[in-house]
Amino acid sequence: MKCEILCVGTELLLGDTLNTNSQFLAKELSFLGIGVFHQSVVGDNPERVRESLKVAFDRSDMVITTGGLGPTKDDLTKEECAKFFNKKLILNEEALSRLKAIFIKRGFELSESNIKQAYLPEGCIPMQNNNGTAPGCIITDNNKTLIMLPGPPKEVYPMFKESVVPYLKTLSNDVFVSKVLRVFGIGESNAADRISNLLDNENPTVAPYAKDNEVIFRITAKCKNEDEAAILIKPIEQEIREKLGDCIYGEGEKTLEYVVGELLVNNNLTISAAESCTGGLVSGKLINYPGISSAFLEGAVTYTNEAKMKRLNVKKETLDKYGAVSEQTAKEMAEGIAKAAGTDIGVSTTGIAGPGGGSDEKPVGLVYIGIYYNNETYVKKLNLSGSREKIRNRAVMEVLDMIRRKIS
Amino acid sequence: MKCEILCVGTELLLGDTLNTNSQFLAKELSFLGIGVFHQSVVGDNPERVRESLKVAFDRSDMVITTGGLGPTKDDLTKEECAKFFNKKLILNEEALSRLKAIFIKRGFELSESNIKQAYLPEGCIPMQNNNGTAPGCIITDNNKTLIMLPGPPKEVYPMFKESVVPYLKTLSNDVFVSKVLRVFGIGESNAADRISNLLDNENPTVAPYAKDNEVIFRITAKCKNEDEAAILIKPIEQEIREKLGDCIYGEGEKTLEYVVGELLVNNNLTISAAESCTGGLVSGKLINYPGISSAFLEGAVTYTNEAKMKRLNVKKETLDKYGAVSEQTAKEMAEGIAKAAGTDIGVSTTGIAGPGGGSDEKPVGLVYIGIYYNNETYVKKLNLSGSREKIRNRAVMEVLDMIRRKIS
Repeated sequence: MKCEILCVGTELLLGDTLNTNSQFLAKELSFLGIGVFHQSVVGDNPERVRESLKVAFDRSDMVITTGGLGPTKDDLTKEECAKFFNKKLILNEEALSRLKAIFIKRGFELSESNIKQAYLPEGCIPMQNNNGTAPGCIITDNNKTLIMLPGPPKEVYPMFKESVVPYLKTLSNDVFVSKVLRVFGIGESNAADRISNLLDNENPTVAPYAKDNEVIFRITAKCKNEDEAAILIKPIEQEIREKLGDCIYGEGEKTLEYVVGELLVNNNLTISAAESCTGGLVSGKLINYPGISSAFLEGAVTYTNEAKMKRLNVKKETLDKYGAVSEQTAKEMAEGIAKAAGTDIGVSTTGIAGPGGGSDEKPVGLVYIGIYYNNETYVKKLNLSGSREKIRNRAVMEVLDMIRRKIS
Repeated sequence: MKCEILCVGTELLLGDTLNTNSQFLAKELSFLGIGVFHQSVVGDNPERVRESLKVAFDRSDMVITTGGLGPTKDDLTKEECAKFFNKKLILNEEALSRLKAIFIKRGFELSESNIKQAYLPEGCIPMQNNNGTAPGCIITDNNKTLIMLPGPPKEVYPMFKESVVPYLKTLSNDVFVSKVLRVFGIGESNAADRISNLLDNENPTVAPYAKDNEVIFRITAKCKNEDEAAILIKPIEQEIREKLGDCIYGEGEKTLEYVVGELLVNNNLTISAAESCTGGLVSGKLINYPGISSAFLEGAVTYTNEAKMKRLNVKKETLDKYGAVSEQTAKEMAEGIAKAAGTDIGVSTTGIAGPGGGSDEKPVGLVYIGIYYNNETYVKKLNLSGSREKIRNRAVMEVLDMIRRKIS
């Protein structure tokens, strides 16, 4: 089956928005064994959407669109696709009642243009949207399949997984089974070098992906059933685990903060965080773990020296002698917050996130992260690069990884 | 002139690489007033590259390709493009001598496949590569223009600016000027409804974009020069400002946290934050503003009742009587942190981010946000929906907007 991706949206066409949907869909389709041969982007223009559908269906059996399902006038994908297949748009009652529920909850009036979103082409398979207002749908006609998805990635990803994947699986006899290993503390090329012998493997395949601050290896087996896939995947997984050791922090969808949250809760450990350069993001990440309330007791964002002294008992002499960005300050911050909050673990961050504030001695990107645990304090010095945001996010991940390594 | 972008590369087609070249080129071309009507991606496959060139030139005057100029077998863009225009590939002496210099510097031998890179279609305008080994080129024939660029973004960006921009400027008399207005506190469809009369405007055009938690309106004028564009944009901007009022928080690239940071610093105001459900993210956002250190004095992540009492002086009776997620607690938190940190402003968040912890009376998504300023405390009740992350991020933006409205 030949499939292609058609993203509709003037914001993509003009480059206002980076097209992450295409990448997501291409990757997911290739895992499912569905060949993608073209990706296209077209603006919110009826004529060009129509032309693009024609070009796409002349060469492919299946087209997946994203975007253009919103409530405004320039959202016209659904209308043009329905015309293309000679289908009328009819009101989908479930979509309407979902829309109403969302608007009642928000306390807004449901307008005419909103109700437009609840109309779908006759005879389609509707796909309800659990993360937004526009439903998607699947039209099949004459051996051609059109799958319409909304535009925002946070709606596209779950709708694809919840509704499109189950549909696509009915089309093929093969199953594709994947196992994801998540890696932190080693760069992509370094990690890939260590397992380079596996990267040309045919079945299962092994593919590395660099995500913000981490590397993910996906092992994918193509088989007749899940049991067969598990047998194929096992030795490959074992080899990767041997070669990457404790840099592998988890599996599947579990993020680093999730793994750390789970470790803290399961080990009955309490934690507190004292943050300077990361400004609350370490606490914010820890609190992403839904069950964290028994473990995370307190966070302090001590951006100023005064706050470091008052809240964390960092000594004035330490700040005077070594500066706020120093191993000594990071140590006293971690110890100070653990004592103030009465927790088993205290973590700290202090650094120069930039763009200003750097010097030859203490350049932008210099960050100290500290952890107090079991009456010992350990401080790690990081030399990070990139934007203010990148430096702070990387520092947060380093703190999480430091906690993981200390308590696992 | 109709232009389109064709990116060649199997790594893009399968989603292994995010296609940032398309976005870069689209944005740059739109600034130059060159209409981009299609973007496509195709793999390193001769037949499909040929087909894609045909589709592209059937509907466009100019095609810009990226990728497929490398030394390996699967790099075939140049060969297929030359065939498409019936041009022979001939050795470009400057490209060869540049290649030789690079290889001598690296201490490598120049192989046959490397030399292949120095061949260019006869009669083309060569574009030398100052950041890599593959030169690009421009072919013009029969009112059709093909611009070939390498694949790596770090080669594409400078080659475009150094060689393509000067060429393109010779082709057009128009400039496109855009103005972006940023909106918070009103949904996309509601905002679009209010200015629906403008959405069909032809010059300037007005286009709405929903971004995470906010709406952006872009006004774009096509003119002979920037002055003329400014005159066209002004009344449209004025009308949008009248209709959306103080929901417009800023212009251009300035985010809500940037606007708030700027307001705080320019007004010499100090601020502190007490966070429960947002767990540090309000502090984290405020600290995104590079100059914030004079304004942001302290943050407290008080996830537990104990921390709320100890750090913020929230009364035990308040927590017992109304609960941690209540208007009263939000009020005492905002006042408590302002007093403890000695700041002009104190903000607070307390709510149920889910997925668990909700009840009929206090459902998931119920969040109270508070602000203490000028001896007054104001608390706003929010009913949010979506995932834990979505609820928390939305609450953070609501706090920022509340600060903006109080102090501007």
